[in-house]
Amino acid sequence: MDEVRIIEIKKSIFDDNDKDANRLREELKTKGVFLLNLMSSPGSGKTTTLISTINALKDKIKIAVMEADIDSDVDAIKIKEATGVQSIQLHTGGMCHLDAEMTRQGLRGLDLNDVDLAILENVGNLVCPAEFDTGASKNCMILSVPEGHDKPLKYPLMFSICDLVLINKMDVAPYFDFDLDKCSQYIKMRNPNAEIIPICAKTGEGVDKFADWIIKNIAKWRNNENA
Amino acid sequence: MDEVRIIEIKKSIFDDNDKDANRLREELKTKGVFLLNLMSSPGSGKTTTLISTINALKDKIKIAVMEADIDSDVDAIKIKEATGVQSIQLHTGGMCHLDAEMTRQGLRGLDLNDVDLAILENVGNLVCPAEFDTGASKNCMILSVPEGHDKPLKYPLMFSICDLVLINKMDVAPYFDFDLDKCSQYIKMRNPNAEIIPICAKTGEGVDKFADWIIKNIAKWRNNENA
Repeated sequence: MDEVRIIEIKKSIFDDNDKDANRLREELKTKGVFLLNLMSSPGSGKTTTLISTINALKDKIKIAVMEADIDSDVDAIKIKEATGVQSIQLHTGGMCHLDAEMTRQGLRGLDLNDVDLAILENVGNLVCPAEFDTGASKNCMILSVPEGHDKPLKYPLMFSICDLVLINKMDVAPYFDFDLDKCSQYIKMRNPNAEIIPICAKTGEGVDKFADWIIKNIAKWRNNENA
Repeated sequence: MDEVRIIEIKKSIFDDNDKDANRLREELKTKGVFLLNLMSSPGSGKTTTLISTINALKDKIKIAVMEADIDSDVDAIKIKEATGVQSIQLHTGGMCHLDAEMTRQGLRGLDLNDVDLAILENVGNLVCPAEFDTGASKNCMILSVPEGHDKPLKYPLMFSICDLVLINKMDVAPYFDFDLDKCSQYIKMRNPNAEIIPICAKTGEGVDKFADWIIKNIAKWRNNENA
């Protein structure tokens, strides 16, 4: 395999995607839809976190959800049943990430009329989704306690592009060697501006703080403030 | 972004890599080195599992380890310090997987003289590493209890290409809604031939069974039996 050739292809794909993502961000701004891109490893609790958070927010703002997965549609059904908000499944056909055009196609499948917040639950993967700008207004990720506090050292790009890091499954912290201080320090090393909120999606701990963060960031975005 | 073009590029990359992986498998057969490719999500316990398993095996066979990571060299140092076996770090330069040529380059960094077993700890990712044949004799993956028993439904390719699935962190099963029977059933749905071994790398539970699996499969491979 010719390594140089691949790098060139990747570069041109990235350039094209970055331009397209900026176009999508402008389109969404015109429509008044704040797009939140939620990323994490497989099994860190993205769907459970979304359910708790949507239930805390749905009386205040109108929400729509895109659940991206390589296969299966269990998550979109779960979200719909547990929250009642509009929810669709995107199948990536084996792809490990979503780019701006795939996100645009997903958004076309939603009724965006009056929607304040569209959430994209990205493919479970700490590597590739970080490389592709989806056109989101903000990027958010979940790191769960069982994954270990050293992950910012090993997956630098993901932590460096996220505006917010949720530390999930705090309820099981006593059973793992997870050091929250060390983890926060590693995250700040990758991204000094990242905000960090410890949560437990299952018990609801910290979910109100995440909901407040969303409300605050939508307001800033509407007022054209750099959040 | 032109979706069709990308698919074509991916197809040609896959074809080239498959041929190269077969060549590498033959080269390793001639050298008598059994290559085990170990994959999983970030934080599922690959390095801890390797340390326990290598310590159970190192008096019986000669082992060398390649630790692949996007960044950092903490894992190679950990393996070396905890087991004493030859261990090197491969940096993928942002790449989300290893292909056959990258694996070959890694193997060149090892002294393979008299080595019976070379272990490749792949990048933590349930998607992309499954798409690239590394030239390994056998593929093995870890799914950890906190990730959830539904993962074979969501990451079908990874489960379908693995000869062995280790279910790790069994010690914390009481704190998670993890159903081992359901998980085994989903794995078999993806891959009827997959073997499944529940383990706890931290306490050592089940590690002897994984060590036996390795010894048995090296023997079969040497005798040219289809394991």
